[in-house]
Amino acid sequence: MHAYRTHTCGQLRGSDTGANVRLSGWIHRKRDHGGLVFVDLRDHYGLTQLVVSPSTPGFDLVERVRTESVIRVDGEVVARSADTVNANLPTGEIEIRVKSVEVLSEAAELPLPVFGEPDYPEEIRLKHRYLDLRRETLHRNIVLRSKVIHSIRHRMVEQGFLEYQTPILTASSPEGARDFLVPSRLHPSKFYALPQAPQQFKQLLMVSGFDRYFQIAPCFRDEDLRADRSLEFYQLDVEMSFVTQDDVFAAIEPVMHGVFVEFANGKPVSPIDQTHSFTNDFGQVSEHRGFERLTYEQSMSWYGSDKPDLRNPIKMQVVSDHFRDGGFGLFAKILGADEKNAVWAIPAPTGGSRAFCDRMNSWAQGEGQPGLGYIFWSDDQGAWGGPIAKNLGQEPTEALMTSLGLGKGDAAFFVAGDPKAFAKFAGLARTRVGTELKLVDEDQFKFCWIVDFPMFEWNEDEKKVDFSHNPFSMPQGGLEALETQDPLSIRAYQYDIVCNGYELCSGAIRNHKAEIMLKAFDVAGYGADVVESQFGGMLNAFRYGAPPHGGLAPGIDRIVMLLAGETAIREVIAFPLNQQGQDLLMNAPSEVEERQLKELHIRLAPPIK
Amino acid sequence: MHAYRTHTCGQLRGSDTGANVRLSGWIHRKRDHGGLVFVDLRDHYGLTQLVVSPSTPGFDLVERVRTESVIRVDGEVVARSADTVNANLPTGEIEIRVKSVEVLSEAAELPLPVFGEPDYPEEIRLKHRYLDLRRETLHRNIVLRSKVIHSIRHRMVEQGFLEYQTPILTASSPEGARDFLVPSRLHPSKFYALPQAPQQFKQLLMVSGFDRYFQIAPCFRDEDLRADRSLEFYQLDVEMSFVTQDDVFAAIEPVMHGVFVEFANGKPVSPIDQTHSFTNDFGQVSEHRGFERLTYEQSMSWYGSDKPDLRNPIKMQVVSDHFRDGGFGLFAKILGADEKNAVWAIPAPTGGSRAFCDRMNSWAQGEGQPGLGYIFWSDDQGAWGGPIAKNLGQEPTEALMTSLGLGKGDAAFFVAGDPKAFAKFAGLARTRVGTELKLVDEDQFKFCWIVDFPMFEWNEDEKKVDFSHNPFSMPQGGLEALETQDPLSIRAYQYDIVCNGYELCSGAIRNHKAEIMLKAFDVAGYGADVVESQFGGMLNAFRYGAPPHGGLAPGIDRIVMLLAGETAIREVIAFPLNQQGQDLLMNAPSEVEERQLKELHIRLAPPIK
Repeated sequence: MHAYRTHTCGQLRGSDTGANVRLSGWIHRKRDHGGLVFVDLRDHYGLTQLVVSPSTPGFDLVERVRTESVIRVDGEVVARSADTVNANLPTGEIEIRVKSVEVLSEAAELPLPVFGEPDYPEEIRLKHRYLDLRRETLHRNIVLRSKVIHSIRHRMVEQGFLEYQTPILTASSPEGARDFLVPSRLHPSKFYALPQAPQQFKQLLMVSGFDRYFQIAPCFRDEDLRADRSLEFYQLDVEMSFVTQDDVFAAIEPVMHGVFVEFANGKPVSPIDQTHSFTNDFGQVSEHRGFERLTYEQSMSWYGSDKPDLRNPIKMQVVSDHFRDGGFGLFAKILGADEKNAVWAIPAPTGGSRAFCDRMNSWAQGEGQPGLGYIFWSDDQGAWGGPIAKNLGQEPTEALMTSLGLGKGDAAFFVAGDPKAFAKFAGLARTRVGTELKLVDEDQFKFCWIVDFPMFEWNEDEKKVDFSHNPFSMPQGGLEALETQDPLSIRAYQYDIVCNGYELCSGAIRNHKAEIMLKAFDVAGYGADVVESQFGGMLNAFRYGAPPHGGLAPGIDRIVMLLAGETAIREVIAFPLNQQGQDLLMNAPSEVEERQLKELHIRLAPPIK
Repeated sequence: MHAYRTHTCGQLRGSDTGANVRLSGWIHRKRDHGGLVFVDLRDHYGLTQLVVSPSTPGFDLVERVRTESVIRVDGEVVARSADTVNANLPTGEIEIRVKSVEVLSEAAELPLPVFGEPDYPEEIRLKHRYLDLRRETLHRNIVLRSKVIHSIRHRMVEQGFLEYQTPILTASSPEGARDFLVPSRLHPSKFYALPQAPQQFKQLLMVSGFDRYFQIAPCFRDEDLRADRSLEFYQLDVEMSFVTQDDVFAAIEPVMHGVFVEFANGKPVSPIDQTHSFTNDFGQVSEHRGFERLTYEQSMSWYGSDKPDLRNPIKMQVVSDHFRDGGFGLFAKILGADEKNAVWAIPAPTGGSRAFCDRMNSWAQGEGQPGLGYIFWSDDQGAWGGPIAKNLGQEPTEALMTSLGLGKGDAAFFVAGDPKAFAKFAGLARTRVGTELKLVDEDQFKFCWIVDFPMFEWNEDEKKVDFSHNPFSMPQGGLEALETQDPLSIRAYQYDIVCNGYELCSGAIRNHKAEIMLKAFDVAGYGADVVESQFGGMLNAFRYGAPPHGGLAPGIDRIVMLLAGETAIREVIAFPLNQQGQDLLMNAPSEVEERQLKELHIRLAPPIK
């Protein structure tokens, strides 16, 4: 017989009745019952019930040792009586009549209970992570993470991608977030940096003639931490050669869709086999399959966010024309003050009650706004009401509300001013309305692409044009657009995948021509010398035959968070740092020996207190 | 039509003749031939021949641009005439009659040619790695690496393992090689370390109740570089719970065997379905399937190495008894001087010539030895000859050579003294004999396990007992052995996989009990306080219920090196550091800004020149 087990704790079934077996695992729970001790024995695979009678050798051991001790038992599989069968447990038809017991490892008094998973302070959970990880929820999350990543890898290979590793000890990158630095022992006063992302390397792989790259890549950013952000995180890094934006979408959609369907536990996932119509910011209409696409501009004006949660059915509308010359003086005045000002409406179906509208108004004031204008139709008033309706007049109000698709029992809220300034608040109000009115079906995964990000934006502080996102993206229209168009009107081939209000990834078709890159930087006010000195490696590479290429990089931790239904990234990482960037289990970061600093040619320079 | 291609450059066949296609790729080679320009167009997938005639729009472009420029062509697939079919090329039955050409990216004058792959200095290859990676051999190596890793992953999952990520920003480890340190911004004067291996984390995963872990894990060691070692490398990190050594072997053998068979290009790989007999160092005999197993002691005495190359069929033998009282005074004297002294024989089948034996003797002198004793039977002498045979006498010589399985035309070499001192040289002599006599069939992969490493060794400098390898291994016999046996006689459940003379991995069944670990460190002279302070995290974990567990960690880069037939690790890494630890392409390590140092609370302290 095997030294530790003939079966796992999740394996035995009714059909094994009568078998002599050996099991090993943790004592999950013990119960005394009529002289017998019942033990739930737990391992990675499941739970099996043991029955130990006072006459069994080792009975006293089982009685004595604490839960979470590791034991090995030999015994016979017996069928449970009909009334004691546990239908919730795969092994629930049987139990083990124990014949002998050995304690493999005894547990001391637990700082953190495993059974029942009561709430515990995060500090204790992280310090004793090996206990925390035994808890069912976290254990399941980490297994889910592993399976999600394996599924992603499998699907990427199915799509013709190969995984390549890029360096982790690499060069400090002049843009983006703060780098982690690694002092070089062999080269005094010089430092490696940990990659914020393998952006330049994946582009270099394309220039090296590899066609379809992916990597589940560790990335590092020395930034202040939030619940959904870690110093060290993983992304599905993807790059492809000889592709257009549509090719990238077509390659990644089946992967994302497939993974979500596989692990969504039956929740609906946005389909990818339906045809959508798409109108770009310049009125051109096209059709495509896959996830829905919105331009950045559309997303901002419909949802007040470039990360819209499409589970919320509310779509905002520009209703400036209804107010321009109308009776509601405040809005008319705002519209008259500046031609970029606008009035947006947030439709609120089923929100037609004064109480609800007042509650929203108070909420808006709590958010630092002067208030939130509204029109509503409550059961008791029998018509559109509220101060705006009163001022606007009955017919214009009716026309406005009809154009919003609203009627009896509904309401609408209004924000006015410079959309750049109020869009974010309007988006929050939309979310609030959707949540309060329970219009949101949470149990689904709604995907969309946000496309056509502006290439440049106006930096009001420095009174200059800046890159709005990634300077390496290809501007739509290429060199000609850069040379002839108003920079602020140029869109980039740049796109995000958004799911349920989370940005799952960013990506772009890259600028693969040195001359277009130099021109793009020139537009943003950077001279060729700056580009050469900061991105010389890549720029040089582009001078020896570079293919058109593009890619993206979905965040793995975020995908797992969504699928696990968690909101903190630490719930989907086996050994996370705490919010202060510390590993409480292994004690990192920690002091090092003087000898080590000397080898690295550095000295400490702690802040003066 | 797609913007860049309807087919890849490796896709078109005779059956596509007549199709109008679009291809994109690099100009691999251009040849002028009777007014036509023939272009080998290359992408990741292969080569396709283009024919461009002077009347084709774009002919001048093709003539003008350099090789390695990226072009797009439209054209018709035409069948090649029988005499121009290229059977070595999958697309060799066809060529493309080009109708139009677009240059997607023009190449400047190349610092490194791609076509033909002439030898080039490593510095230039690394600085222009994106060109180097386009060369067929390196490109193929990197693709092989990707496929090997994917295959390993797939096979591990088939064996019931799940991949989990362990932290890269972690704690400095007090043992082992030198750590890379990462200064903490949030915690002045403290440092993270990059993991030398996820050893403690994988053990913690077992204590956390995960049963079968693996990870293709990046590891970091700040050590001086050699051809087969990199600062940053990958290992297949594996750990299992509730297992014996045999379980670990049974889990990993199908993975290693399967991967080698898959990528060996038909070269034979040691089978795993044969039964071997194994005798341990204490005379106990057992049978097992899988790769052959040798104890550390056997490997040292048979092959003079714990990394034996079993492609060499020579097995050394201890032949002390033949010399103990014999006529060859030198050996008899050595044997009499110290009871641990011995005489080893290196059989040399087909080596029976004075010329060969003299050559070996000279080689030994070149290695700093006084010489290398031998006995041989050459065609012209008709009996065993050489000085040793003369002294030993005819009958004892005959008995000795018969016991070595040798006869007419063969030879044997002899080394005498303290085996600890001469084993390594004897191993070199064995290798030399095998190579010189062409006894080694290089085109195969011969695997074995080296098992039963000694737990402790005698440190002659400090006159104390030391751990010989991994202090976390379980001593055979457990606590009782530590308490009752001579430490130097204790074996560990520790094992290596060796292939063709390379150590592919180390592994062990771990010590999972705090009290046994404390005792083991005590034997090696370390107090409980030292263990608690240096390994407290893991020791504590063992106190809350730890399963018996074990694992191993094959080196990925080395596996790929073997399969690619390379001897330098940089030939199987896409973007390696050079031998001085520099990334010549991205310029790492590099100087950083004062601001960054300040944020990290460190100052430079360069060595004084």
